[in-house]
Amino acid sequence: MTATALPVVRPTRSPGPRQDREILSRLRKATGQLSGVTGMVEDGRYCIDVLDQVAAATKALKAVALELLDDHLSHCVTDAVTKGGRTAEEKVAEASAAIARLVRS
Amino acid sequence: MTATALPVVRPTRSPGPRQDREILSRLRKATGQLSGVTGMVEDGRYCIDVLDQVAAATKALKAVALELLDDHLSHCVTDAVTKGGRTAEEKVAEASAAIARLVRS
Amino acid sequence: MTATALPVVRPTRSPGPRQDREILSRLRKATGQLSGVTGMVEDGRYCIDVLDQVAAATKALKAVALELLDDHLSHCVTDAVTKGGRTAEEKVAEASAAIARLVRS
Amino acid sequence: MTATALPVVRPTRSPGPRQDREILSRLRKATGQLSGVTGMVEDGRYCIDVLDQVAAATKALKAVALELLDDHLSHCVTDAVTKGGRTAEEKVAEASAAIARLVRS
Repeated sequence: MTATALPVVRPTRSPGPRQDREILSRLRKATGQLSGVTGMVEDGRYCIDVLDQVAAATKALKAVALELLDDHLSHCVTDAVTKGGRTAEEKVAEASAAIARLVRS
Repeated sequence: MTATALPVVRPTRSPGPRQDREILSRLRKATGQLSGVTGMVEDGRYCIDVLDQVAAATKALKAVALELLDDHLSHCVTDAVTKGGRTAEEKVAEASAAIARLVRS
Repeated sequence: MTATALPVVRPTRSPGPRQDREILSRLRKATGQLSGVTGMVEDGRYCIDVLDQVAAATKALKAVALELLDDHLSHCVTDAVTKGGRTAEEKVAEASAAIARLVRS
Repeated sequence: MTATALPVVRPTRSPGPRQDREILSRLRKATGQLSGVTGMVEDGRYCIDVLDQVAAATKALKAVALELLDDHLSHCVTDAVTKGGRTAEEKVAEASAAIARLVRS
């Protein structure tokens, strides 16, 4: 039974450590890309080349977001739905709202 | 005079230093946001909160890209069109292709 | 009548009729917007005005997609997770893949 | 001086008829896709299949927008920049603003 410990405050994530490693590795890569872009602007590099690197970093961030979302649906939302009740509905609504913010970002 | 120095190799950008400062400031802010996101994942923070920060960083990058693009149209493309000829057409085609990559990123 | 020809494998949706009405109304509005854009191009209207209408139709389509997705998570995915087992995992993976296609569209 | 022929009312587009034919053909295809999507929702087709068609229509609309934009840069903006003066700057600023609305749509 999982009845005792419903989250009272803001829950923390509990995905497997493997997903986290993957997400952290992507995040560090994207941060490195951005530092590279900063260097390109400082060096007065050609706008189109800079733009393409910004577009590449944007794509990398979207991949991070999609992985976080898949992780969230597979763990937090699935757990809440399995338990059922109002928390389940709230989790689904929360996920939908986050997807909307992502699609519109 | 525009006669002497047509770019032979990959051109460098020549916007006013003001735009560059603005762009660099936005880039550093976005890089800072990403480092923050990395810290959030390391601390096991709630997925939806992490996702929202990733979406915010994505928006910030898009703003950088749009500023670079405006800069490029106002300077490089405008200069090329003023000179006319094939370079002008090439610059417009190059800008359109960069816009397409941005819209699809 | 829709009673005779249910697909054998491919599942059908079973949302309440209210969501469907809402989605159909949005789809018809977006289709109307597109017909309007076609008329604008035929009349040789100014590019920027045409572009803005295309951007408005794109936003309307994203709203349709987000509503379909929320509907899908609240019904199909929730039902599958409640039943549990491999189907649940498959439904979550399928939803994640659809979200990725949407984010990248 | 460019004093004689500044547009007084909203300008009309003057691209070659070839681009217009291409754009109209894409718009009609996208409108057809949307009618197809409406039919799918009316028939109660599976959400994910509907979603994928909406994503396809969104991609088609983006392609229309990019073609309109390329057309605009190659004709209206290029013409204004060739004439020079304030109209040129205004056209570039207007194009940048339209690109921003497109990227954020």
